[in-house]
Amino acid sequence: MDFHEPPVFPRGFRCGALHCGIKASGEPDLALFASERPASAAAVFTRNQVPGAPITVGRELIRGGALQAVVVNSRVANVGTGAEGVARARRMGRAAARALGVEANHVLMSSTGVIGVHLPIEKIEGALPELADALSDDPMVGARGIMTTDTHPKAVSVPLPVVAADEPEDGPPILTVVGKGAGMIEPNMATMLVYAFTDAELSPEVLDRVLRRTVAGTFNMLSVDSDTSTSDTCAILANGMVGPVDEEVFAEAMEAACTAMTEMLARDGEGASTLMRITVSGAATLDDARTVAKSLVNSPLMKTMVAGGDPNVGRILMAVGKCFDAQVDPDRIGSAVNGIPVLDGGRRTDFDNEAVGRQLRTDPVDLTVDLGVGEARARAWGCDLTHGYIEENTGYYGPSS
Amino acid sequence: MDFHEPPVFPRGFRCGALHCGIKASGEPDLALFASERPASAAAVFTRNQVPGAPITVGRELIRGGALQAVVVNSRVANVGTGAEGVARARRMGRAAARALGVEANHVLMSSTGVIGVHLPIEKIEGALPELADALSDDPMVGARGIMTTDTHPKAVSVPLPVVAADEPEDGPPILTVVGKGAGMIEPNMATMLVYAFTDAELSPEVLDRVLRRTVAGTFNMLSVDSDTSTSDTCAILANGMVGPVDEEVFAEAMEAACTAMTEMLARDGEGASTLMRITVSGAATLDDARTVAKSLVNSPLMKTMVAGGDPNVGRILMAVGKCFDAQVDPDRIGSAVNGIPVLDGGRRTDFDNEAVGRQLRTDPVDLTVDLGVGEARARAWGCDLTHGYIEENTGYYGPSS
Repeated sequence: MDFHEPPVFPRGFRCGALHCGIKASGEPDLALFASERPASAAAVFTRNQVPGAPITVGRELIRGGALQAVVVNSRVANVGTGAEGVARARRMGRAAARALGVEANHVLMSSTGVIGVHLPIEKIEGALPELADALSDDPMVGARGIMTTDTHPKAVSVPLPVVAADEPEDGPPILTVVGKGAGMIEPNMATMLVYAFTDAELSPEVLDRVLRRTVAGTFNMLSVDSDTSTSDTCAILANGMVGPVDEEVFAEAMEAACTAMTEMLARDGEGASTLMRITVSGAATLDDARTVAKSLVNSPLMKTMVAGGDPNVGRILMAVGKCFDAQVDPDRIGSAVNGIPVLDGGRRTDFDNEAVGRQLRTDPVDLTVDLGVGEARARAWGCDLTHGYIEENTGYYGPSS
Repeated sequence: MDFHEPPVFPRGFRCGALHCGIKASGEPDLALFASERPASAAAVFTRNQVPGAPITVGRELIRGGALQAVVVNSRVANVGTGAEGVARARRMGRAAARALGVEANHVLMSSTGVIGVHLPIEKIEGALPELADALSDDPMVGARGIMTTDTHPKAVSVPLPVVAADEPEDGPPILTVVGKGAGMIEPNMATMLVYAFTDAELSPEVLDRVLRRTVAGTFNMLSVDSDTSTSDTCAILANGMVGPVDEEVFAEAMEAACTAMTEMLARDGEGASTLMRITVSGAATLDDARTVAKSLVNSPLMKTMVAGGDPNVGRILMAVGKCFDAQVDPDRIGSAVNGIPVLDGGRRTDFDNEAVGRQLRTDPVDLTVDLGVGEARARAWGCDLTHGYIEENTGYYGPSS
């Protein structure tokens, strides 16, 4: 699939970002995404049992199946803040609605940052009118506004193929996905903060179905550090300004765009130097394939093996074997690193250490593992574990979600 | 319970260690533990589905309920080595039996080190006669012989109380536990390598029952890095040279000695600077309490919070909440760090950052978490995550199990 490079917004969507005073650094800490008209919408949220106040409110809002804007702050996550936190999340949504002149129940809010601290809501309310007045057509502006420990803004956009007869004069509909990740990233049901926008016409039911299916095989198979955030949110808005698209075509575009975003998030994990892409095949069931892929991508010894370019491939056997409930035959496990076989029938192959070491130091590292007991396959994404992760997370009050 | 300081062996047990040529460094790489006479025995092994050859052979041996010696090498784990690996494990046991003049099926063997490489069995066979001829009464000699990335040898011994009338002239029976840990440590059914020796008289059935009960609440609640080794072994030998003890008295001594060993293993985790001891109370079930305690002790963001002395206590809420299947009420979670309350009713307390930061930089860090929904409690042990862990595990062919 050909992506727009650089990413563009679908028709009718704009965004903005500014520094409203929450981050001490003066970097953008408030972002706003808005559609010219109400959009069909769907969203999934973290399964963490101590969810942020925006998640509690977001679950209510999304029942309506419609959104027109998303307002996001960084540095303070509004988690562990009780009824007052919920009240402040609602105030944040209402302030954005007033500034944009849209309905309050059409504004989704997200907060990311330190847990257990109250949202400086007056700063947000004070800044929203200015923010709403200066929206841009460039999705990277909003992508930059939602960053915490991310090292670069992240957005992708793809054209949605339509049958030639239906092709609108100014081009096909577009799907654009904006996201952030970095740390506290092993999403379950959704990832950190990802927003998808399209000018195609799609019902909330189709959006919900496609979103859940896409998330299961992309963001839910991503892990930077095995810690599931309290703020994970993935929402999609379809404003229908260009026209209808086929559900399967849309699902394919979502798969491609969300896979690309997942790889960006993995590669930019806290301290990461390399994307690790792990493909497990020959599993007895899809669950087994996913479990083994997640075990490999989360193992600190696998992650340091990649960071060090050290072909200590016995660790692959360990990480497969510690999946106690998956069907595993120690004598059938095969594996390759960027195409070089390193395990065959559960035994180390006679590979060249230098050559495999070089592959482990390239980006990405594609590790394939064949369990040899069935037909199911799954892929997981992650990153290596370096001194940079320790640096980022031992600092006093480093951004935590 | 009063421990013997320094540790001593129960009557009839001796051990030795030497360098047989597997480690390039010249440090001890072969150790032998032996009893004067056959002992009742029980053992538990790793649940990793790619177990080492010594585990395969050990599971057979332990069915007999009797052992007289344990032979251990480091640097090569004899895992992922197929039928040839099993044959070499048996040769290792037979060589030790010949050197000691005991039955071959009374010798348990363990190997720890790199996975996927064949055991240099000739070096081991060649060195065993010399090793068996120079056994010592000091358990620390054997403890040093089984070290890999451990920074110090680990043994504890406790006297086993007997009723006064039964007290033997030369003192009560003794329980001595020798172990090693460091990395690839989240045991399941047992830990890395732990051997317990006693001169009390106990049947294999009682040993098995007490061992499983003890391991469930001690070594199985230990995690250095969430990676479950292929070689975990925990065995106990009771040679009965002093006389019988009550099962409950023995179970209490095992609990105390294995808790002490668990704390030693956690504190000496790869790169660790601090023991993290996590007590979860108020859980709905024992399973919930154990799951939440393990989630807290395994979370990289909790571990770096401790490493950095950074009271970013929202991470506690995150790590509790990511236990999707445990009963959790976000508004009832309480927590304290070395006695200082940091969370109350799911909210951050008004604690002094400097004071809590200082506690996080002390050793040990005792974190208590009360879920407030039931009566069950559990404890887990681990360590902080530092640059040292990355150092140790990014090096080419660092010891891996």
